[in-house]
Amino acid sequence: MGDRPCKDHPKTPLETAYTPSLDQLAEKGICGIMDPIRPGIRPGSDTAHLALFGYDPFVYYKGRGAFEALGAGIDIQPGEIALRANFATINSENVIIDRRAGRTIPEGDQFAALLHDLSLPSAPDVKVTFIHTVEHRGVLKLHGSNLSYKVSDMDPDLVNVKVQTCRPLDESPQAQKTAKILNEFFQLATKILSASPLNDVRRQKKLPPVNSILLRGAGIIPDLQSLSQKYSLRTCCICGAPLYRGVAKVLGMTIIDVPGATGTVNTNTIAKGQAALQNLESFNFIFLHIKGTDSASHDGNYLQKVMVIEKIDAMVKLLLNNVELDDTLIVLTADHADPICVQDHTADPVPVVITGGGVLSDDIKIFSERTCANGGLGRIRGLDLIPIIMDLMNKIKKFGA
Amino acid sequence: MGDRPCKDHPKTPLETAYTPSLDQLAEKGICGIMDPIRPGIRPGSDTAHLALFGYDPFVYYKGRGAFEALGAGIDIQPGEIALRANFATINSENVIIDRRAGRTIPEGDQFAALLHDLSLPSAPDVKVTFIHTVEHRGVLKLHGSNLSYKVSDMDPDLVNVKVQTCRPLDESPQAQKTAKILNEFFQLATKILSASPLNDVRRQKKLPPVNSILLRGAGIIPDLQSLSQKYSLRTCCICGAPLYRGVAKVLGMTIIDVPGATGTVNTNTIAKGQAALQNLESFNFIFLHIKGTDSASHDGNYLQKVMVIEKIDAMVKLLLNNVELDDTLIVLTADHADPICVQDHTADPVPVVITGGGVLSDDIKIFSERTCANGGLGRIRGLDLIPIIMDLMNKIKKFGA
Repeated sequence: MGDRPCKDHPKTPLETAYTPSLDQLAEKGICGIMDPIRPGIRPGSDTAHLALFGYDPFVYYKGRGAFEALGAGIDIQPGEIALRANFATINSENVIIDRRAGRTIPEGDQFAALLHDLSLPSAPDVKVTFIHTVEHRGVLKLHGSNLSYKVSDMDPDLVNVKVQTCRPLDESPQAQKTAKILNEFFQLATKILSASPLNDVRRQKKLPPVNSILLRGAGIIPDLQSLSQKYSLRTCCICGAPLYRGVAKVLGMTIIDVPGATGTVNTNTIAKGQAALQNLESFNFIFLHIKGTDSASHDGNYLQKVMVIEKIDAMVKLLLNNVELDDTLIVLTADHADPICVQDHTADPVPVVITGGGVLSDDIKIFSERTCANGGLGRIRGLDLIPIIMDLMNKIKKFGA
Repeated sequence: MGDRPCKDHPKTPLETAYTPSLDQLAEKGICGIMDPIRPGIRPGSDTAHLALFGYDPFVYYKGRGAFEALGAGIDIQPGEIALRANFATINSENVIIDRRAGRTIPEGDQFAALLHDLSLPSAPDVKVTFIHTVEHRGVLKLHGSNLSYKVSDMDPDLVNVKVQTCRPLDESPQAQKTAKILNEFFQLATKILSASPLNDVRRQKKLPPVNSILLRGAGIIPDLQSLSQKYSLRTCCICGAPLYRGVAKVLGMTIIDVPGATGTVNTNTIAKGQAALQNLESFNFIFLHIKGTDSASHDGNYLQKVMVIEKIDAMVKLLLNNVELDDTLIVLTADHADPICVQDHTADPVPVVITGGGVLSDDIKIFSERTCANGGLGRIRGLDLIPIIMDLMNKIKKFGA
């Protein structure tokens, strides 16, 4: 949600949007600004969420792949390496023609079956599993000993360039072994997919052939005490996009599926708000995530970002009308800024507001990047947020006596 | 620049000075206060500058001597120990009569030549070089193995007391060896200088004899990745005083010599501002340092400090009239406070303002210690400053995805 002024837009999308309910949150609550990780660190969505839930990403971040895979409903066990995968179209020189092989892949499960339980010459002890998820997407999972997630991406995130060779990112034999396995997998998968008669059918339909796999974001599940255990919470998560669902699972949250929660700018924020209200009895900590502001920012679409913020405002109105603030806290913030003029995450601090029982309200009446800087919370860091909330929830034990 | 109110002056020099251009910076930019190192740590100029450039001084500070020597144009290699030196006048009991031997030493180079390449009995393997710089000042350089900069000052910074014996500051044999060498050097240098016929001429001119050397500030060049490399910057430095030039060299900056940049209260701030403007094409990061406010503070001269601040304001006016703020950032701050009533560095936070493209301006319209405390940056630390600037300059990579 956070943004900066830029040449064309002296006001941020949050300043432009009509947000009476966000402003009501600000008026009733305590505001501040927050460096998701620390000043000048540009957060990924994964590292930022770890920090916001109180887990230092410099300690606990172990790559994105396992979060994404878990979020897509795939079973990942501790120690297993998970990578994000695209079905793709490449030419005979390994140059990428289409990173998504046309995006429409009804035969996805059949292609994936061709790659199931491949045995790789150099590592017969490692079990290699490929699972198709949605559209062109899938997950590659490595199960075995002496593996490491510290390997480079093979997907260059560009077309008309070659698929990158996987390299170890540290000196360990584990990373070297894993990189070798992934390079072998790429060779073998490309050979098997290219030879598949399924592609004859695709060519007849004028669809690009699915003849290779692009891998990125190797990761493992971080070894941590779940949020639920740490603070004796009953936690749930309401969000559409796989990454956040994956983080939530790792943190011990129950995933609530909400029809219309798409993880895109079209998501149904009212349905998500209603789901939160319905679950307030069963859970005492609800993580509700809206991805749309970030998607609009990556596209550089100012008005779309304003629109998503106004949809969030409508959801907050629903919450304000239906919760008893005396014994409920509403915390609203962003995992990182993504200014329209940059079209990517930046390190700017984000606005944050905490409203509800016990909160020492300040004199901020408008919720924005600028106004929140004068709020009663001051400038905090992502790692401070959960401890502050847990203190207000009386979930913190005394240090000393 | 930072100061405190005191009995005689309820307003700080910055509050008293007429500073329309500094206020314009504040009005257009985002303000804050900054603990150069952290609350309650009184910074030296050396440790403060390391912190302000993003290098933790608790990790990277290795004494002042090498910075001063480099800044004075002396070649210091990694591993060599450099100490700041004064020609001085002492009596036969090693009691200091004049810490600067009258300050006027036209024979400085000749005296230094007497001490060139001395061989010390206890460490014939160590090359000892003495270089005269300006006035009574010089540098002693030790080249050899098993040396350490962790040795105490011999210069007590007082007169009518004895020259101090150099002591090792840790248990290492390196520090013990180095302290022994420096004590031997002191003995030998005192003997050689005392016997020099050059002093007969000085006595005839009623000048105090140059009969000893006072040593302080042992240091080595810290091993660090330069600022230029770290962020792919083309950096330069515009400053007069040797210390800051030395720090700048260590950080990979090109030194720009500006006639009239004296490093004193009489420095030509307009010439420095013009030099900055002339170099804006060749460099994308310019470090411009004004020493005068600190010198005035050390002298307890309130009005002189006000005058230097007004000279800085005139320079900022020149900059504001000649840069395109849409794609230029102007950052103004101090490396530490030096209150007139203390006459030395204190740990008070200093005001800071960042003005230019992408900055989320706040409602602060006056640049001062007091007003900046309500600014949109909040209270930051010196180590945060460069990351914040680099984020605005789009020089930071994402952590995570």
